[in-house]
Amino acid sequence: MKQEQGLSVKEGQVQMKVEHTKQIKEVVNAVKAKNIQNVYFVACGGSMASLSLGEYFISKESLVPSFVYTSNEFIHRDPKVLGENSLVILRSHSGTTPETVSAASFAREKGALTVAISMDTESPLCQEAEYTVHYNYKDGSDALDGEVGIFYTLIFELLNVFAPDEKYSRVVNQLPNLEKLINKNVDLFSKVADDFGKKYKREKIIYTMASGAYIHHAYSFTSCLLMEMLWIHSNAIHSGEFFHGPFEITDFDVPFLVIKGEGASRPLDERALDFVKKYSNKVEVIDIADLVFEGIDDDLKEYFGPALAGAVTRLYADGLAEHTGHPLSVRRYMWKMEY
Amino acid sequence: MKQEQGLSVKEGQVQMKVEHTKQIKEVVNAVKAKNIQNVYFVACGGSMASLSLGEYFISKESLVPSFVYTSNEFIHRDPKVLGENSLVILRSHSGTTPETVSAASFAREKGALTVAISMDTESPLCQEAEYTVHYNYKDGSDALDGEVGIFYTLIFELLNVFAPDEKYSRVVNQLPNLEKLINKNVDLFSKVADDFGKKYKREKIIYTMASGAYIHHAYSFTSCLLMEMLWIHSNAIHSGEFFHGPFEITDFDVPFLVIKGEGASRPLDERALDFVKKYSNKVEVIDIADLVFEGIDDDLKEYFGPALAGAVTRLYADGLAEHTGHPLSVRRYMWKMEY
Repeated sequence: MKQEQGLSVKEGQVQMKVEHTKQIKEVVNAVKAKNIQNVYFVACGGSMASLSLGEYFISKESLVPSFVYTSNEFIHRDPKVLGENSLVILRSHSGTTPETVSAASFAREKGALTVAISMDTESPLCQEAEYTVHYNYKDGSDALDGEVGIFYTLIFELLNVFAPDEKYSRVVNQLPNLEKLINKNVDLFSKVADDFGKKYKREKIIYTMASGAYIHHAYSFTSCLLMEMLWIHSNAIHSGEFFHGPFEITDFDVPFLVIKGEGASRPLDERALDFVKKYSNKVEVIDIADLVFEGIDDDLKEYFGPALAGAVTRLYADGLAEHTGHPLSVRRYMWKMEY
Repeated sequence: MKQEQGLSVKEGQVQMKVEHTKQIKEVVNAVKAKNIQNVYFVACGGSMASLSLGEYFISKESLVPSFVYTSNEFIHRDPKVLGENSLVILRSHSGTTPETVSAASFAREKGALTVAISMDTESPLCQEAEYTVHYNYKDGSDALDGEVGIFYTLIFELLNVFAPDEKYSRVVNQLPNLEKLINKNVDLFSKVADDFGKKYKREKIIYTMASGAYIHHAYSFTSCLLMEMLWIHSNAIHSGEFFHGPFEITDFDVPFLVIKGEGASRPLDERALDFVKKYSNKVEVIDIADLVFEGIDDDLKEYFGPALAGAVTRLYADGLAEHTGHPLSVRRYMWKMEY
C-alpha cells in the first residue's frame, strides 16, 4: 500500500482519476495554508442535503464550527462570522443554480476560500469559485469519481486536516469499494423497493422520517423525489422531533417511510419506529444496518451508511414511478418557464 | 430614563419583575465571566423553534458561532466543540421534557454553562441546569414577563455582550410595548384568521412557507398547531428551498399559508409567493409588514416582527379549530400513554 499525502492506493484497486485527486489536493493544501476557523456548506435542495453530510461529520468530530445554508438565505442572512477565515463549499449539479452562483460571488467578496463542486467545470458556479472539484455523472466511470466518491474524499481529507485521525485515511482507502457496494445494495433492495411502489401507489401523502446524517436523505427524498418528481405530499420529520408535535398526525392509514440509521442517533429512529408501527398500518423501514458493507471496517460503517443510503432510497422512488406510471423525469414547472 | 447595566426603565413604563431581571443579569454576568466561544440552543418542538430566533440573530450579528439542536440529536451527535467555553440554552415550557433534561445534564458534564428557560423553576430542567430563567404563563401578568419578553431580553442582553451595539439596548428598552402590540395585532388579525379557518376547514393538507427568522414560526405552526393540534398534514417549506423541489407540488387546489417576513430574507418570500399565487387558488399571506409596530423604531422592526408573529399565526390555528370543531386541546396520544 502506497501512502501519499493521505490518499493511498492498493495494488490492483480502482484509482481515482488523476485530475480529481489533483483538485482535491489543491483544496486541502489551500485549507492548510489558511487559518480556517469555520466551514459553510451552501447549496439548494438535493445539493444542500448532500453537503449536509459534511456538516454532520465535521461538527461531530472536529473543533471547526460548520454550518449549512440554502444559498439565498446565506446571502440575505449574511452571517457575521463569514470572512477571510471561512471555507465555503458550494455545490450545484449543473453548476448553473443562480442562487448558488451568487452565493459563491458573495463569499468570495467576503474573502472566504470558496470551493465549487459540480459535474461541469465550465459552469458559472465553477467560474465563480476559487477552487473547483469536479465529479463524473452517468458516464460509466467508477463511483469513486462520481458525486459520492469525490465528496467523501474531499470531506474526509478535510477532516484529517481539522482533526487528524487514522480513521479518516481508512475511509478514503476504502472508498474504492463504493461502486461494488452500491451495486450490491441496489440488487439487495430493488425487490422490496418495487413492492413499496406497488403497495403505496395510491397514496397522496407519504411522510419520511430519520435522524443524524440520514435526516438529509429524508429531506432529499421528500423534497426532490416525492414532492418534485412524484407530486406526492410529504414532510421529512426528524425522529427526535416526532414526539414533540408531528406524532399526533399518525393514524392507521398514514404512511411513513422510516430510515433507521447506522450511527449515533439510531436509538431515536428505533423509538419513533416502535410508535408508528403500533398506530399506522403503513410503515416501511429502510434499515441501514441491513445494507451490504463488504470490505468496510466495522468502525467505519457510520461513515459509509450515509454514502450508500442515497442509491437505496432512490429505488423506492423508482418503485413509485413504475407503479403510478409517473416517470421521475416529468415536471409541471421546472424547465418549462421562468420563475 | 435610568440606564443600568443595559436594562433601563422609563418613568411610568411597565417594568419587568425584579426576580426576572435578576435571573437574566446573573446569566449575563456568568457569560461575561467566561470565555464563551459558542452557543447551543437545545430543546424540542415548539420550544426549539422559539430558541431558534436566538440562533438567527446571534449568527447574523455576532462573531460567536451558534447552533440549534433538537435535544436528543444534541446528545447523540455529541458535537466536539461542546465544552467549557460553550453556553447551552435549553428550554421546555413545563421543564419536564425528558430529552431536554438529559441534554442539560449532558452539557453540564461537558463543562458548559447551562441555562434553563421554563415556566416552572422547580421543574427537573431547572434543577439540572446551572442557571434558570423563568417566564410567567397565563397568569395575567404583562407580556414583558412572559415567554417572549423574557427570551428577547435574555438574547438582546447577550448580543450586547457578544457584539455591543446601542441597537440592542433599544430593543430591550422597547420591549415594554410588547403587551400592547400583541393585543393590537391580535385585534387586527382576528377577523382574517377566522375567515381563514372558515375557508380552509375542509383541507386535509396545508403547507406553510417562510424564511429567515420566520421559518421557525412556520415550523412551529406546521408541527405543533397543524399536525399536533389539528391533525392536518403539513410541511414547513423554506421559501429559499421552494424552487429546488417542493414547488412542483403546487397546484390549483393545494393550500399554502405564507409568512412574508419583515427582515433580510423578505425577497425570498416575495418570489415564492408570486409563484404560488399564480398556480394555486388557495394562498393565504401573513404579511409581517402589515403588523402594528407602534412605539418601535423603524430599524428595530426586523427584531420585533418575529416577537409578534407567534401571537398572529396562533389566530389562524384558532380559526381552523373553530370551524373544524376540533379544539386545539384535543390529542390522540399525548397525555394518554407512555411512548
